[in-house]
Parts: sequence; C-alpha cells; structure tokens
Amino acid sequence: MNNDHPEGGEPQTWTFRPIGHVRTSHVRRYDAPRQPNRDEHRVSAVVELRPHENFEQAVQDLSGCERIWLVTVFDRIQNWKPLVLPPRGRRKRGVLATRSPHRPNPIGLTCVRLLRVDGRMLHIEDTDLLDGTPVLDVKPYLAYADAFPQSRIAWVDDNPEPNHRVIWDCVDASIPPDERLYVERTLSVDPLPHPYRRIRCVGPHHYVLSLRHARFRYRIDGDSVVILDYTVDLPE
Amino acid sequence: MNNDHPEGGEPQTWTFRPIGHVRTSHVRRYDAPRQPNRDEHRVSAVVELRPHENFEQAVQDLSGCERIWLVTVFDRIQNWKPLVLPPRGRRKRGVLATRSPHRPNPIGLTCVRLLRVDGRMLHIEDTDLLDGTPVLDVKPYLAYADAFPQSRIAWVDDNPEPNHRVIWDCVDASIPPDERLYVERTLSVDPLPHPYRRIRCVGPHHYVLSLRHARFRYRIDGDSVVILDYTVDLPE
Repeated sequence: MNNDHPEGGEPQTWTFRPIGHVRTSHVRRYDAPRQPNRDEHRVSAVVELRPHENFEQAVQDLSGCERIWLVTVFDRIQNWKPLVLPPRGRRKRGVLATRSPHRPNPIGLTCVRLLRVDGRMLHIEDTDLLDGTPVLDVKPYLAYADAFPQSRIAWVDDNPEPNHRVIWDCVDASIPPDERLYVERTLSVDPLPHPYRRIRCVGPHHYVLSLRHARFRYRIDGDSVVILDYTVDLPE
Repeated sequence: MNNDHPEGGEPQTWTFRPIGHVRTSHVRRYDAPRQPNRDEHRVSAVVELRPHENFEQAVQDLSGCERIWLVTVFDRIQNWKPLVLPPRGRRKRGVLATRSPHRPNPIGLTCVRLLRVDGRMLHIEDTDLLDGTPVLDVKPYLAYADAFPQSRIAWVDDNPEPNHRVIWDCVDASIPPDERLYVERTLSVDPLPHPYRRIRCVGPHHYVLSLRHARFRYRIDGDSVVILDYTVDLPE
C-alpha cells in the first residue's frame, strides 16, 4: 500500500493490491442472486489468495470463523452515479444509501459463510460475487460488533416483499433451472415493466420477459403471474 | 478510481480517493475504545464528506438508516504482519482472523449508529475511529444481509470475558474520567503484564499500570484488583 501524501495535508489517494480473487461459476451479471442470504439457491465458491505472500499464515485461526466479511472491488464498474434505481424500487435513491456498485469508490462488502480453509484457498458459501472479483480484505464476522438484527432502514423496510405468486402454465423441461429461478424471483417481486427488467407489454395484462435469447410470455391475474409459454429466439 | 491492468491479466492495484474523513475527539490511540458496542461510554463524531463532489446528493435517503458501515483506512499503519497478538489474548493469531489494523491492506470496517445527516456531515455514535481517519465508503446496514447474531468465531468466543472486579482503594477526584475508564476496562480483563499494556511488577502481587504520565499502583487479590494509589509523574 502506498499513499500520496501532500505536504501538510491529508493523503489524497490510497492504493491497494488485491490479496486474492473469487473463483466461482457466476459469470454473467444476472446469474448473481441479489439477496444471497434470503435465497434458497446456495452456491459455493473459492477465494484464492495470492501465492508467495505468507497469506497461508495470515489465515491461521480463520477456520474457526463461521462467517467472514469479504471486502471486494466492483471491478466491472466504470463510473459512479449520485442517484441509483434499486432493483426492488421504483424511485431513485442516493447511492450511499444503497449497496449499488455504482459508488464513488466501487468497494463491495459481503458476509459469506466459510466452509473450510485449505492452504490459501477459502471455500465459501452464499456468494453473490462474480468470477474474478478482486478481494482486498478478509475479516472475521464478530457477532458482538457486527450483528444488529433490529437495525432498521426506512426505504428498504418500507418496500414490499415479493407479493406475486408465479404459476407455470407451460411445461417445458428444457428451461434451465437458473433461468426458471431468475424468472420466479423477478416476477414475484414486480412483474411490470421496469428499467432493470427486459419486460414489454404485448396486450392487456400480457407481457413478455426476455432473458438472453429466451422469451417468457405471461399474464398478470390479480396477485398471480401465469407463465403462458416459453420460446427461444436464437440468432440466425 | 484507476486500475493498473496488465495485458491479459487481472488488475494489479486499485487506487481510491477517500470520500471524507472522521472528525472526533479521539486523537491518542489508547483513547479509542476497542469494543465500542459493548461499551457504555458513548462518544459522537462526524464523517465530513468532501465538498464539491455531489456527495450531498449521494447520501440522500441515508438518514432513514439506523446504522451504517464505514469502510476506512488505518492510515497510521505502515506494515502488515501475518500473525498478531489480539488485545484480549495471550497467543498470536493469523491477522486475517482478527480485526487488527496490521493487515495486508489496512482497510477498516466499523458499524456505527447514524444520528443525523446534515448536508455532507454525517453525525455518528459508537465510534472507535481516530480523528482524521480516511473514509473510503459509507453503506447502509441491512439487517437481512448483515446481521448474524448466532455466528460463532472459535478463538474469540473461547476467550474469557472480563473476570476481575476493580476496587478503588484510593480516593482522588483528580483522576480524569477517561483514565478511570481505561484502567477499569484494562485491569478487569487481565491485570498481568502483557505486551499491549504498560504494566510492571513491583513486588509480590503488586503492579503499576502506566498511562501517559499517570501511575496506578494495585494489588491482585484473587479475582479482585485493588487500586492502591494514583500518582502523576510529570516530566521536569
């Protein structure tokens, strides 16, 4: 770590070298579950610490930790925005009141379950991190300092929970499980067109959700979303 | 933020500019309570975000957050150590299994109570941060993603709680309250000589704890620590 320390002033910048990188099968952005700890779809991943740095010694005693913090870099992000539209909302919020990656410093913070430590490989669960994500720091989760289950945040707590039931009225064994999960997660929260979702209206109460080349046509019926058919629109 | 991205490889370093700095009366290292959330001695502080950066807009909606995360730089730290001696322990631990500042990347993480937002000034409570600490990021505390009150960590949970009763057998109204608190906190956990504490043995069961120019002489009596006298050793 270096710092650029002007005469008499506070340091202007801080430079960090990642201690390791995330290795996972999450490659595409939409694959990453947005709220990993609420999600029944658990995946496992590895934090691979860099070799020849004595990090094997630095993670001694870590295996006794049930959960750890990963401080990461949102390395796909180029610019920050003062206001962002959260996935679950319909109103822009100040970016520092959200966990959006479009922050002034694109630093991520994720609490993950530690499965085991194997040399400089940390096997973890519950990740929403993308493959190759740089890891700046690993810290033990300390319940007495970090756990405040009653802590409230007005704009999130006031947002509705998933409130639509998703019913599959088409049987197609060829739908990949991850696409099925994405469709259910997305439409159960909010099935209407939204800047974060590729949804277009195709008739009264009828919509199509696109996901790469897949097209899911559905009808909104009160608090139910009925998936009518599934097509794949492959490029020629 | 810039990154040094070698041809075909992963970025080697990441450079961040603090979004603000902590303003507090905690200046000396020992003043900072080590476990702020266990401590009844609450202090308040301000995170002053940098002007002319649109951060006033970026903290919109933050005032609805009861608690926030501060991602900071341990800016007084020069080197990292693979193994460190935690304040409460008598055995060295891997630094990444602790919250010690002597980390490969000296990044700190603290959960603080947010009192109010006033333009680009965030008024906070419960801080163990030193005055001038650079703040890289501010995030809302999200109980559903961050609160795991049952999460265990073997080497911390197996350490003893404060187990000595501190009895003041000298009356001296001139002892500053912060020194009195430091003495009680330190000796109740472990009154024996230790690399983190300026304690020397002056006779059978008799010790002196030094704190700047103050000297506290005490006797260990089973599970009690009896403070016998208090002197100030001012330089000539």
